[in-house]
Amino acid sequence: MSDTTHKSQLEPDTGRQRIEWARAHMPILAGIKARFLREKPFAGLKIGICLHVEAKTGVWLDALTAGGAEIVITGSPGSTQDDVAQALNAHPSITVLGKRADSRSEHDDHCREVLRSRPDIIADNGADLLTLLATEEEFTSLRGAIKGSTEETTTGGFRLRENGVTLDFATWVINDTQAKRIVENRYGVGSSVVDGLMRATNVMLHGKSVVVVGYGYCGSGVAQRLRGMGAHVIVVERDAIRRLEAHLEGFRTAELDECLHLVQMLVTVTGRDGALTLEAMTKLRDGCILANAGHFSSEIDLAGLAGAAASIHVCRPGIEEYRLANGNRIFVVASGNLVNLAAGDGNPIEIMDLGLALQSLSLEQMALHGRDVDAGVHPVAIEIEQAVAALAVEAWV
Amino acid sequence: MSDTTHKSQLEPDTGRQRIEWARAHMPILAGIKARFLREKPFAGLKIGICLHVEAKTGVWLDALTAGGAEIVITGSPGSTQDDVAQALNAHPSITVLGKRADSRSEHDDHCREVLRSRPDIIADNGADLLTLLATEEEFTSLRGAIKGSTEETTTGGFRLRENGVTLDFATWVINDTQAKRIVENRYGVGSSVVDGLMRATNVMLHGKSVVVVGYGYCGSGVAQRLRGMGAHVIVVERDAIRRLEAHLEGFRTAELDECLHLVQMLVTVTGRDGALTLEAMTKLRDGCILANAGHFSSEIDLAGLAGAAASIHVCRPGIEEYRLANGNRIFVVASGNLVNLAAGDGNPIEIMDLGLALQSLSLEQMALHGRDVDAGVHPVAIEIEQAVAALAVEAWV
Amino acid sequence: MSDTTHKSQLEPDTGRQRIEWARAHMPILAGIKARFLREKPFAGLKIGICLHVEAKTGVWLDALTAGGAEIVITGSPGSTQDDVAQALNAHPSITVLGKRADSRSEHDDHCREVLRSRPDIIADNGADLLTLLATEEEFTSLRGAIKGSTEETTTGGFRLRENGVTLDFATWVINDTQAKRIVENRYGVGSSVVDGLMRATNVMLHGKSVVVVGYGYCGSGVAQRLRGMGAHVIVVERDAIRRLEAHLEGFRTAELDECLHLVQMLVTVTGRDGALTLEAMTKLRDGCILANAGHFSSEIDLAGLAGAAASIHVCRPGIEEYRLANGNRIFVVASGNLVNLAAGDGNPIEIMDLGLALQSLSLEQMALHGRDVDAGVHPVAIEIEQAVAALAVEAWV
Amino acid sequence: MSDTTHKSQLEPDTGRQRIEWARAHMPILAGIKARFLREKPFAGLKIGICLHVEAKTGVWLDALTAGGAEIVITGSPGSTQDDVAQALNAHPSITVLGKRADSRSEHDDHCREVLRSRPDIIADNGADLLTLLATEEEFTSLRGAIKGSTEETTTGGFRLRENGVTLDFATWVINDTQAKRIVENRYGVGSSVVDGLMRATNVMLHGKSVVVVGYGYCGSGVAQRLRGMGAHVIVVERDAIRRLEAHLEGFRTAELDECLHLVQMLVTVTGRDGALTLEAMTKLRDGCILANAGHFSSEIDLAGLAGAAASIHVCRPGIEEYRLANGNRIFVVASGNLVNLAAGDGNPIEIMDLGLALQSLSLEQMALHGRDVDAGVHPVAIEIEQAVAALAVEAWV
Repeated sequence: MSDTTHKSQLEPDTGRQRIEWARAHMPILAGIKARFLREKPFAGLKIGICLHVEAKTGVWLDALTAGGAEIVITGSPGSTQDDVAQALNAHPSITVLGKRADSRSEHDDHCREVLRSRPDIIADNGADLLTLLATEEEFTSLRGAIKGSTEETTTGGFRLRENGVTLDFATWVINDTQAKRIVENRYGVGSSVVDGLMRATNVMLHGKSVVVVGYGYCGSGVAQRLRGMGAHVIVVERDAIRRLEAHLEGFRTAELDECLHLVQMLVTVTGRDGALTLEAMTKLRDGCILANAGHFSSEIDLAGLAGAAASIHVCRPGIEEYRLANGNRIFVVASGNLVNLAAGDGNPIEIMDLGLALQSLSLEQMALHGRDVDAGVHPVAIEIEQAVAALAVEAWV
Repeated sequence: MSDTTHKSQLEPDTGRQRIEWARAHMPILAGIKARFLREKPFAGLKIGICLHVEAKTGVWLDALTAGGAEIVITGSPGSTQDDVAQALNAHPSITVLGKRADSRSEHDDHCREVLRSRPDIIADNGADLLTLLATEEEFTSLRGAIKGSTEETTTGGFRLRENGVTLDFATWVINDTQAKRIVENRYGVGSSVVDGLMRATNVMLHGKSVVVVGYGYCGSGVAQRLRGMGAHVIVVERDAIRRLEAHLEGFRTAELDECLHLVQMLVTVTGRDGALTLEAMTKLRDGCILANAGHFSSEIDLAGLAGAAASIHVCRPGIEEYRLANGNRIFVVASGNLVNLAAGDGNPIEIMDLGLALQSLSLEQMALHGRDVDAGVHPVAIEIEQAVAALAVEAWV
Repeated sequence: MSDTTHKSQLEPDTGRQRIEWARAHMPILAGIKARFLREKPFAGLKIGICLHVEAKTGVWLDALTAGGAEIVITGSPGSTQDDVAQALNAHPSITVLGKRADSRSEHDDHCREVLRSRPDIIADNGADLLTLLATEEEFTSLRGAIKGSTEETTTGGFRLRENGVTLDFATWVINDTQAKRIVENRYGVGSSVVDGLMRATNVMLHGKSVVVVGYGYCGSGVAQRLRGMGAHVIVVERDAIRRLEAHLEGFRTAELDECLHLVQMLVTVTGRDGALTLEAMTKLRDGCILANAGHFSSEIDLAGLAGAAASIHVCRPGIEEYRLANGNRIFVVASGNLVNLAAGDGNPIEIMDLGLALQSLSLEQMALHGRDVDAGVHPVAIEIEQAVAALAVEAWV
Repeated sequence: MSDTTHKSQLEPDTGRQRIEWARAHMPILAGIKARFLREKPFAGLKIGICLHVEAKTGVWLDALTAGGAEIVITGSPGSTQDDVAQALNAHPSITVLGKRADSRSEHDDHCREVLRSRPDIIADNGADLLTLLATEEEFTSLRGAIKGSTEETTTGGFRLRENGVTLDFATWVINDTQAKRIVENRYGVGSSVVDGLMRATNVMLHGKSVVVVGYGYCGSGVAQRLRGMGAHVIVVERDAIRRLEAHLEGFRTAELDECLHLVQMLVTVTGRDGALTLEAMTKLRDGCILANAGHFSSEIDLAGLAGAAASIHVCRPGIEEYRLANGNRIFVVASGNLVNLAAGDGNPIEIMDLGLALQSLSLEQMALHGRDVDAGVHPVAIEIEQAVAALAVEAWV
């Protein structure tokens, strides 16, 4: 064993370490990087980016620079991994702005910095960059110089469309693709939610009565994985066609009210506020565990629950016990935040490999032919989506 | 939200907190405690115990004292949760000896202390107490005074039988029951191994080629749960009947050599040394992740691998990267220790509820009729096992 | 047992018997019939119908007459169950034309008879009635008198659109609904194909290597059910996104050429000609069983296979053995016709209950408000689909 | 297509055709036959057999004759396939006695004929031959001349042991093997029961509430396959450990009384009389379908049901409708006989391949070393079982 000992040592450079672990599981980006190295689609171009600065992002930035790009990126407050940012800043073609502890206004300033670097292409998240670009006078001259952009989130796409932001160039919304809906929502979220629930609670899923509220892409994935772990899943879904699908898929389905008294664990995945009301929670059996896997922590009315509770205390890291006046206890995981992110590591690395490959090929298209793409906010071109799916097949199968 | 804030506070007494979270998920012991409170089967009796001192054990000790028992217990070096020990020592009928940092010889001294307290009944773990009792002269007079005992582990049972230890009283081996094999080995281990793998790696199991080596109770459980998470499982099993079972169950099966070049993750669950040799490991494809879910860390020949590796470094907490001379990387989870314990929280709480219920009813039987039970090392009486299974049905279904 | 004997007797009226067995498993239509009896939406109206005359159709016609309709219906050559037709003709409001042995031209004459009865509403199958109505001069005056119509098949909808048939009234295509795609294609076809394969062959599916070519709604259903029976399913699918979905769902995927040498059974579900070419078939291993579950018997090139075969003989009812020049045998089920229909009883009764409920509510809508619906060929209104799904939930859950 | 037509023709010799279809799916016996041809283990020996004379048996007899055996066999009344018997009688080394229409006493005479041919080895079914051999004076001299024997059924083994029949030679009971319990009971019966249910009823299993009574090897297989077809399975099992297993496996479990009012289909697989009493049947909901997959048709009290029914009639081939006084209908499949045999083709061919391979190697052992095996009724030697499992792995994997 002495051999082991003297060869092994904890790397001091944790940021680089994290990036390397991610890289080892991102074969799609590895292939794209190899091609970018040969073809240099971004030669002489600068890409301005707003996206979470963490290990997987680092692997992606590396692929873009292999294609000749210069990168200026800002993370988001709260999600920046500072050691990863430090490792990336060592790269000659990458400038990382911001740190984890930034305030919202500091973040806005970093966004402005990105724009002031006069990027040729933009990759945005939540429309943070594009909104400033469209609304602040300082950036008037930049608007016409942009070749095209991407937006990571569906929410960002909405924000642009709803605010009537008009841009002279095309924006492709990465999340509005069938590939991401299937790969990320059904399979990625399905498994990471189960991961989060097991970590947070250490309870047995086998034989447990678990209600899944919502049977869309995410909800059906969560229901399938819980069943895969032996849980007795009951699906609550208001849409009749989806409920029929759940029923024929072999799931017991019920109205929420019908199953509250027998449920041992309940997960909301509806994408709407108030999926679980205070009134419903008062009907739960003693000891029920609640978690949320939908986009908003407001799916469970925790403010209402807190108001009605006789006492609240943290009973295990990440779990709060609410005791009701009738003596029943309700255990809430991760304060109702997304259980896969808040109690786990979020989606598996491979899921991000596919998403960032969609980003890469979309940005390449903008670099080469962005001005030929219709201006405005659109889903990613189907050819790009098909190409990424083909790369994923090659890498994963 | 201010309401939430002022009601919520982190309990300072973490030991008690852990016990309470466990208690909330141990309904079988709750029922047994209620009966013990009425029937007092241990009135006037002292139980000497060697078992891991952690939260679930605490719930059990409480049930025994409810039955009238006085408890003297020592934990095991390395596994004692000191805050739980502190919380338990506050109980008037419980004496906890030992702490996490104890050496082996300190542990032996604690075992002697337990025996010197002159218990009427013994609950042992790994035959630590019973071996001292049978071999050290100091305890000669105690031997005839014991009503009966239990032994938690199959290994402890072997140790007693192999060492030819003869005792005047009966010892029931808790783990030699069909109930534990099914509930703990197949379902408990199956799910906790998946939990450990996801935590340790954050890689996607969907679509991943995973080899499970060994298809006994544990191995079949691991294979089922990995499949339940979408993995493409390949079973390697030398016994032809078991291999046939895996094949008909829908698993691809193969000789180990046939699948080394395509496997992305490999889990050993064989219960024997050297299930994965250095020679086999040199044939693995680059980036393969290795983990062990069998009893011994020696299932994977890590000493051999370390000797052959060009470099070794920790590449993520709990994961070591071995780089071979041919450039291939092998990632080893938790240094080959049991992945569900070393990278997760071990088996779910409910699993221990069943196991400790078996302990409780066995000890009760020894208290009431121990002298009528045949002396020697035996499996738990089938009536006790059936009774506990019936309680589990009542509590879980 | 004498009691049993004298009470039991084979009913002579097999047509009525078949209808009663179907009725016992068509709760959705039972509910619709009860409402129709009260509301009489078809009072004074005649419905002209072309659809397979079999037991489930009989249950449907009964519900329509309960709503006040007079019915004139012709079946299709080859599918009419003559005993059912006889039983239905005993109903005062139903006229059934045609018999199983009819020629195509006799069928066309029956269609003309239906139109000559001057129906107010039409329910068509394959556009047989509507094409005559639109193209033959005899029916000019009828065209403006029709309130609306339904068309059962997607193919019939295509035929109308492609032939540029213009009608003054609305036609809703029943099969172009999400409800039918999920319920009938994924679940109905999935299970009836497995049923047909087991009946035809009596071979074991557990552990069998089965290739499913095509992973659309039908193909994914077939793959899921075969896996549910323990088969080792390999999915062949050209579309990258669908292939990715199959891969993440846990299926092994491959190019067709990669798996021909190891497959023991192969099912085509692609909806296109020549999914399995002669060249591919010459690479199959000896004894492979072929079946088709797609719409056209031409998915497997049997003419080509017959040309290349050294000998062909029926080796079991419904199975032909083709022996190739190289000595290999290929077993073809049901001459490449739809295996669930040709080797089984077609989709389960309940599936038709949902489809005929869609027909019923669509025809009701045409009766009440047909003239307010946009003329032309459309999918069924989403409100109707939702209403039927809600009825199915009520009946099945 | 003319090519197809002139090459294809229905073979007149249906017995030989059936045998060839079976042979194509019995690779284990094919391998054994090839070895027997070389090694001639039965050279100069006569084997006297009582077993069902059907296609798969024919493939087996052919393998035995390849090993040098002369065969005298009688089938069982009711199960003999006369065309297969005719085809086998054309073989110079095989004599088949009996026909389908034989009475019980004619069968006994055929058994005596088999014994009068003075076989060296016996392969029995239900102890028909061995009981005569042990009890009738005519065969006194034969008893000492037998090298050894096999008995197909567990029931036959019981019969020998219970009747205190003592024989001078060893008898191995084929069905008392782990290989057959797993392969035949769990997987074979599981799939053939689903096959039989679908054929008999044409109802949808997806989403159907199906109660499985009994969770032994057969019952758990039936429950798994029904779930694999999308049914909502509820397991009823009195043994607490088995019930726990079903619960953790993800099945809803219940007392029979708790689920009678909601069940749409019920299958008994208990192996004991009266698993479903008349009293229970009166609580079933209207339209429930009943079937039996256990060994005895008496698992469902049909005599009681017939006595209580207001009317009984065949409502579909193989299904009787019992109408109770309260108006509810109960549909009974195949008069309560084994649903996989009575409504389907019995277990898949491959299952019999394994069972007859166990027979073949057991008989070989008796031929070569029968006199060295302990006299009396025993399970097959574990080495034989392991050898057959290894052959199955080779043939199937």
